[in-house]
Amino acid sequence: MKYCSQCGAPVVKKQPPDEQVERHVCERCDTVHYINPKIIAGCLPLWQDKILLCRRAIEPRSGLWTLPAGFMEVGESVSEAARRETWEEATARMADVTLYTVFSIPRIDQVYLFFRGELSTPEFAPGVESLDVQLFSAGEIPWQELAFPVVRATLEHFLRDRERGEFPVHSADIR
Amino acid sequence: MKYCSQCGAPVVKKQPPDEQVERHVCERCDTVHYINPKIIAGCLPLWQDKILLCRRAIEPRSGLWTLPAGFMEVGESVSEAARRETWEEATARMADVTLYTVFSIPRIDQVYLFFRGELSTPEFAPGVESLDVQLFSAGEIPWQELAFPVVRATLEHFLRDRERGEFPVHSADIR
Repeated sequence: MKYCSQCGAPVVKKQPPDEQVERHVCERCDTVHYINPKIIAGCLPLWQDKILLCRRAIEPRSGLWTLPAGFMEVGESVSEAARRETWEEATARMADVTLYTVFSIPRIDQVYLFFRGELSTPEFAPGVESLDVQLFSAGEIPWQELAFPVVRATLEHFLRDRERGEFPVHSADIR
Repeated sequence: MKYCSQCGAPVVKKQPPDEQVERHVCERCDTVHYINPKIIAGCLPLWQDKILLCRRAIEPRSGLWTLPAGFMEVGESVSEAARRETWEEATARMADVTLYTVFSIPRIDQVYLFFRGELSTPEFAPGVESLDVQLFSAGEIPWQELAFPVVRATLEHFLRDRERGEFPVHSADIR
């Protein structure tokens, strides 16, 4: 951030009164600008004994497989964002969804939240950000071609939890 | 947002190619500016059979009781943010924490995450944003003077879960 988004003047980094850390501050209009971590919402879409994955058409990790997920927008809830991303990337609709995994990645200031749920119908197709969308059984998952560690972790939790028939929410920090 | 934070030129609202919605776009340097929901991280601090609450010294809801919570910063995980806020508002340190409640509030573009855990020691004192900090037994909770619906919901879940000795993660949208 170099300029004030409210008045267009250059911003400086300094510690405002009553704050513990430096912020981007506009010395013309006194606005303090905060930079916040971003939420990425996604789904673990299931159909019978299979899991839906998307092959990425965009960077980063173009060509690798992922669960449908993307940046949460203003005006929606986390689960609505997860459903929207599943529609945009896999042209698939989710039935009921339940929060399943939460990952903080401080290095890149992102928090991932994945929701588990069945597809409404076994209909899907690549959206503009996907090259391919497919259902995989446990034995077919392309472990060597997964796009992100949070996708691997969510799939590993699910396969273990399915064995014992319990699906608690898993939460972890990734460093 | 009125001006580009990268180059200082006025921004316009328009739909970039390949995007589904209008964004703030700089027509001088072509930067697309995204506005994202914010994360508020907090704790449900416990000591023996009591719950720690803080009386707010700042708006909104100054004078009302809350769980310690605040905006997550860049460079930290959600649980680190929850611990930091507990220190800043209640001068209290948490032992192990576990994710407990997740609330989306689309109307104000906020996502709350509360972590449940014991205090390391029963030591606490008001930080600069608190007028008072106290431990409350279930019968002492000031239900009529709670600051936010997410605080009430988290306390209600906890008291019910404590009865049955199980503490699953609770997730909901608040409208």
